[in-house]
Amino acid sequence: MADNKKMVEAITSMETDFAQWYTDVVKKAELIDYTSVKGCMVYKPAGYAIWELIQRQLDDRFKETGVENVYLPMFIPESLLQKEKDHVEGFAPEVAWVTHGGLNPLQERLCVRPTSETLFCDFYANEIESYRDLPKIYNQWCSVVRWEKETRPFLRSREFLWQEGHTAHATAEDAEERTIQMLNVYADFCEQVLAMPVMKGRKTEKEKFAGAEATYTIEALMHDGKALQSGTSHNFGDGFAKAFGIQYTDKDNTLKYVHQTSWGMSTRLIGGLIMVHGDDSGLVLPPKVAPVQVMIIPIQQKKEGVLEKAQELKNRLSGIRVKIDDSDKSPGWKFSEQEMRGIPMRIEIGPKDIEQNKCVICRRDTREKIEISLDEIETKVQELLETIQKEMLIKAKAHRDSHTYQAATYDEFVKTVNEKPGFIKAMWCEDQACEEKIKEETGASSRCMPFEQEKISENCICCGKPAKKMVYWGRAY
Amino acid sequence: MADNKKMVEAITSMETDFAQWYTDVVKKAELIDYTSVKGCMVYKPAGYAIWELIQRQLDDRFKETGVENVYLPMFIPESLLQKEKDHVEGFAPEVAWVTHGGLNPLQERLCVRPTSETLFCDFYANEIESYRDLPKIYNQWCSVVRWEKETRPFLRSREFLWQEGHTAHATAEDAEERTIQMLNVYADFCEQVLAMPVMKGRKTEKEKFAGAEATYTIEALMHDGKALQSGTSHNFGDGFAKAFGIQYTDKDNTLKYVHQTSWGMSTRLIGGLIMVHGDDSGLVLPPKVAPVQVMIIPIQQKKEGVLEKAQELKNRLSGIRVKIDDSDKSPGWKFSEQEMRGIPMRIEIGPKDIEQNKCVICRRDTREKIEISLDEIETKVQELLETIQKEMLIKAKAHRDSHTYQAATYDEFVKTVNEKPGFIKAMWCEDQACEEKIKEETGASSRCMPFEQEKISENCICCGKPAKKMVYWGRAY
Repeated sequence: MADNKKMVEAITSMETDFAQWYTDVVKKAELIDYTSVKGCMVYKPAGYAIWELIQRQLDDRFKETGVENVYLPMFIPESLLQKEKDHVEGFAPEVAWVTHGGLNPLQERLCVRPTSETLFCDFYANEIESYRDLPKIYNQWCSVVRWEKETRPFLRSREFLWQEGHTAHATAEDAEERTIQMLNVYADFCEQVLAMPVMKGRKTEKEKFAGAEATYTIEALMHDGKALQSGTSHNFGDGFAKAFGIQYTDKDNTLKYVHQTSWGMSTRLIGGLIMVHGDDSGLVLPPKVAPVQVMIIPIQQKKEGVLEKAQELKNRLSGIRVKIDDSDKSPGWKFSEQEMRGIPMRIEIGPKDIEQNKCVICRRDTREKIEISLDEIETKVQELLETIQKEMLIKAKAHRDSHTYQAATYDEFVKTVNEKPGFIKAMWCEDQACEEKIKEETGASSRCMPFEQEKISENCICCGKPAKKMVYWGRAY
Repeated sequence: MADNKKMVEAITSMETDFAQWYTDVVKKAELIDYTSVKGCMVYKPAGYAIWELIQRQLDDRFKETGVENVYLPMFIPESLLQKEKDHVEGFAPEVAWVTHGGLNPLQERLCVRPTSETLFCDFYANEIESYRDLPKIYNQWCSVVRWEKETRPFLRSREFLWQEGHTAHATAEDAEERTIQMLNVYADFCEQVLAMPVMKGRKTEKEKFAGAEATYTIEALMHDGKALQSGTSHNFGDGFAKAFGIQYTDKDNTLKYVHQTSWGMSTRLIGGLIMVHGDDSGLVLPPKVAPVQVMIIPIQQKKEGVLEKAQELKNRLSGIRVKIDDSDKSPGWKFSEQEMRGIPMRIEIGPKDIEQNKCVICRRDTREKIEISLDEIETKVQELLETIQKEMLIKAKAHRDSHTYQAATYDEFVKTVNEKPGFIKAMWCEDQACEEKIKEETGASSRCMPFEQEKISENCICCGKPAKKMVYWGRAY
């Protein structure tokens, strides 16, 4: 399909219909597309390249903390899935079942992994014998399947790409330490690489992972004021170890159960990137995850020397992901395309610029235009990419902070939820009934109990009993 | 499990039982393990790290030729699989079927992809409209499932990891060019990175891929004289395009069918590495795919200054994948472990060496010991790694060449197959009946019709009619 045919159809504005804006951007920036397989998507080159950059940089951070990558099977025998009671209750309703292999029915049906705790446990039960075998800090990059009824590109689909870390430790302390360590790796990654600020905290009992003792989460705020759970880290204690019999002989020669964790982030992050940074011209990508960081757009490219100069600039920008758009479209079309695709910076260069030994740089995030001398192009472009990366985070933080509210009473809470989309800090008594009532009546769920607790009021906003926790609430994706 | 406990059990020698030797190495080098899921394996850290190095270097080579990565769903609706007649006949008997999603039966069952031609065709049918959209040079890294009855680590399992490239072109010439280009990328990669020489050629009609017009292959020779098909590249012509209706409007405004290719390599390559380079002490890895390239083993490590010196050497070897084994095992154990794991080089350093400002380097491939001055460690280690990489290829080529035979008559052929395992060059009339008879009677299948044809004799060794092709034959994995 010719690009300019698609570009003439403008995308819906964010204010008019945020959901439609999102779908338009996803489609027109050519990130992802629907397929004949209901609920499953194609990650197109522009979308998959973002995932590759996320993978590479997150994986490097994992490895710095001692993580080793492995790959376990995609199938889980039904009997294995059923070994941990809470876990199977959480996942069985939404898994895909393989019942036939080749022309024959299977003796035991297999589910396609929705997550791999049970497989890792089965593996560890054979692999771990002594304290010398601990800790195990394994991770895998793979796809998982959950039979969702409603799907949305990147945010919810029947198959999605992710990483899942699974660790086993000698003590409860080691497991808790790793759980928090990985949550911090996630939070740093979101801020430093995706320019997406996140709130760290613990999930309530109701919202925690099926089978976990404690689930920690990072929650980001989207442009429309809705929250996106962006990564979770679970401490399983020795619950799975007991269900699967994962024991080790300690230094004192006694048998002990291991303590386990798991943690995951997924292609959902790309949905987060779109909804945190995007604008009415399309995608806006932070330089660190932009497959193309700089697009050079020649002006009057048929004039002598223009394409040659563009090529020369490209060659000089080594170490930066640069492309030249020398297609036969007009510069205006090329600008729109570069903006739609979220390329952080474009360089405009034409005969007049060359005469004056300069070029024009246009930032995607602020649309600021800057004239620079061609002599200093290497340093200026590098500096500007770093500036863009930093300022996108500052801007996103400012948006998050200006959309974080607090409520001391239920009336105030309801009014805020309805009138001011964002995070709402409010007190809670820790009773699940209140949490459920709030969600049912307002649509706002508990996002997390942040590590840094504040006292907004004395009592639970719902029942009026003494409050025990300050909770971040919000409507969520 | 403590390493030394496993190391005391020696591995079977290659001469005694090659198959058992292979299984022992796979297990003791901790590359892969069986799971509770029949026919599916765990890729353990040492095995998966080799795959990561293969992926990274092969992917770089792909991208240099303009390949873009994408990700398509793992499920294929039955109706889609059935659109191309030969293809479905080839794959339907060995696919896994998903029949239930969550608690409900599916309206149409889905197979777990055994390969993704049908999905790419479905995608391209929507994506391609005009000549401007061509070519599409897409690839994905994923796992695929084939319901094999007999499985062997890396060589044949129900789920395995691979890459599959799928391209669409305007003309038959472009498709053929890409098919051969990728075969060449594969062959170069095997020789330059895996130090594994391969024979390039075309598959016979009988051995070609289900639905292809032509299949090209690279065939490697294992230490035991059996062949391993190590990568294939298929030209589909416009057969799939016609079945799926993939048409484009050409410059002359007429509708034309695209021409397609696909090409794949898999974790099978790791099996090849083991069987080409391994020896009776275990794995031998070429430096370019060795997760650890150099193991520093301190001697009398409790003596003052030894561990510090080991650490200093490690720091000086930047850009090289180095580890220090400072565990409390004896140096002898550590040597055996380093050898079993195929680490290309070890550096032995003890108090006496330090006194004399030297260390001992031991090559894994030749077991040669070399004393070098600590002053020149950076250059010497780098040089030696390059030498090892080169000489491993030379050695493997020499083995392949000395195990490549020719036969002018059927008697000679049968005698060679039975007495001298290896490739056999022999003439063939192109009649499938002869090919089948040879395979049935001797166990040797046609591996490929090499690009460089020779004339071994005038007539087909089987039927005696005039020969049309010189074929490489061999028993194969």
